[in-house]
Amino acid sequence: MQHPFDAAIALTPLPGDAGHRGATSPAYANMVGPFGGVTAATLLQAALVHPARLGEPIALTVNFAAALAEGGFEVIARPVRSNRSTQHWLIELSQGGETAATASAVFALRRETWSSAEAQMPAEVPSAASLAPARARFGAPAWVQRYDMRFVDGGMPEAFDGREQPASQSRLWLRDEPPRPLDFASLAAICDSFFPRIFLRRRQLAPIGTVTLTTYFHADAALLAAQGERPVLGCARGVNFRNGYFDQSAEVWSDAGQLLASTHQMVYFKG
Amino acid sequence: MQHPFDAAIALTPLPGDAGHRGATSPAYANMVGPFGGVTAATLLQAALVHPARLGEPIALTVNFAAALAEGGFEVIARPVRSNRSTQHWLIELSQGGETAATASAVFALRRETWSSAEAQMPAEVPSAASLAPARARFGAPAWVQRYDMRFVDGGMPEAFDGREQPASQSRLWLRDEPPRPLDFASLAAICDSFFPRIFLRRRQLAPIGTVTLTTYFHADAALLAAQGERPVLGCARGVNFRNGYFDQSAEVWSDAGQLLASTHQMVYFKG
Repeated sequence: MQHPFDAAIALTPLPGDAGHRGATSPAYANMVGPFGGVTAATLLQAALVHPARLGEPIALTVNFAAALAEGGFEVIARPVRSNRSTQHWLIELSQGGETAATASAVFALRRETWSSAEAQMPAEVPSAASLAPARARFGAPAWVQRYDMRFVDGGMPEAFDGREQPASQSRLWLRDEPPRPLDFASLAAICDSFFPRIFLRRRQLAPIGTVTLTTYFHADAALLAAQGERPVLGCARGVNFRNGYFDQSAEVWSDAGQLLASTHQMVYFKG
Repeated sequence: MQHPFDAAIALTPLPGDAGHRGATSPAYANMVGPFGGVTAATLLQAALVHPARLGEPIALTVNFAAALAEGGFEVIARPVRSNRSTQHWLIELSQGGETAATASAVFALRRETWSSAEAQMPAEVPSAASLAPARARFGAPAWVQRYDMRFVDGGMPEAFDGREQPASQSRLWLRDEPPRPLDFASLAAICDSFFPRIFLRRRQLAPIGTVTLTTYFHADAALLAAQGERPVLGCARGVNFRNGYFDQSAEVWSDAGQLLASTHQMVYFKG
């Protein structure tokens, strides 16, 4: 049986060079439109399945230009420059003839080189097995149930009481639900799974929407395969909130302490 | 007299909807091709001068697809989606008919809202006036002389002796040289002015090249105008170095302690 994530990012080739057709998935529905992480993964997928693809993703930037409506859409991925070891992509998702999201991606053939972590996985974090999975709240969008999330700290506030907090760090173990071996597409989606930092800071709900999301892939396919279905550790925090926009940054770690991805986004909020 | 930065990012309209023509500037030459910060600023400039522009930049991602040769190039900026308060752009720079760089940008009309810094400017940093400007090294590329840089810590190593360091933080005051009032274009360039973190970590030189650069603008035009020509504080650090690529993140602060921009890049290195 196909995993709901694979069903959600599935692409059907269109005739000629017209790209692919996909459709939103109710299993990953958000408050309005689909979960942005799945949209990001679908855009990346269009390059991953392209016959001209070189190597593996190094970087992905997705710009969410409009809320997607439920239903079908078209995705076209175009390699705009292929060098000896790097390849640059532009990817566009449209619905009803209008651009709804754009992405750029850098792919590369990696070689083994001197390597060194500078950022470190947080020390002394309890294991995923020792933590209880977060329960989905009444009214939570469907996509939240597609992840097993176990918070070390910075869970969704118990009450939205408007008591402002000085910091918005979350640390959590998470994996696809049901379990699914980690790959570039699912990692891209996980990088958008950290709920908006402003909910932690303000302890009040407000309309928000990610306008742009950038993910850097530090893992190659072998490192992702080694991670398998086990939970990864996500660490997210807000940076600055000002006049309608805030940015948040996060890292995703393997359970062996290797950085799999670093990710950043700029989010609109109604204040 | 025109400031060399304005000369470097100057664009001449091409007939019809064919975009603009620009040219590399010897004043901002890098080891190979022009300083990437000026390329980023030029791509942003193509949207800034576009008659359909809405509001001010919120985010800019530049993908450096190939080294630019000295000489002329074409830039075309296309608003792919204009909403009530946000606008999404795709921008492409080509040389000799081939794509050399692409960019996406989000522009927005900002409103006054609840605002709050989460990241804080480093406390107890000596003032720019109390520090000596870094002297350009023999063999340093021309663009380095277009900035007055005063390092608090993490300056370019005195010797490239291969003694590996555990961290790569740099903190420095910097401004255009000669002084120039800060605006979105010059801030975009400043965000690419932090020398590659790997030089600090390894204390050895190696071929490197930024493949993608993302900048989030927290400042609006009024905040930039208030900063004027005075130096800003840049704080940069490496995140992870692995198999040919590393990422670095930085913040740029006003001298009054407000975050003007946060910026991230993924860099190729030969190891």
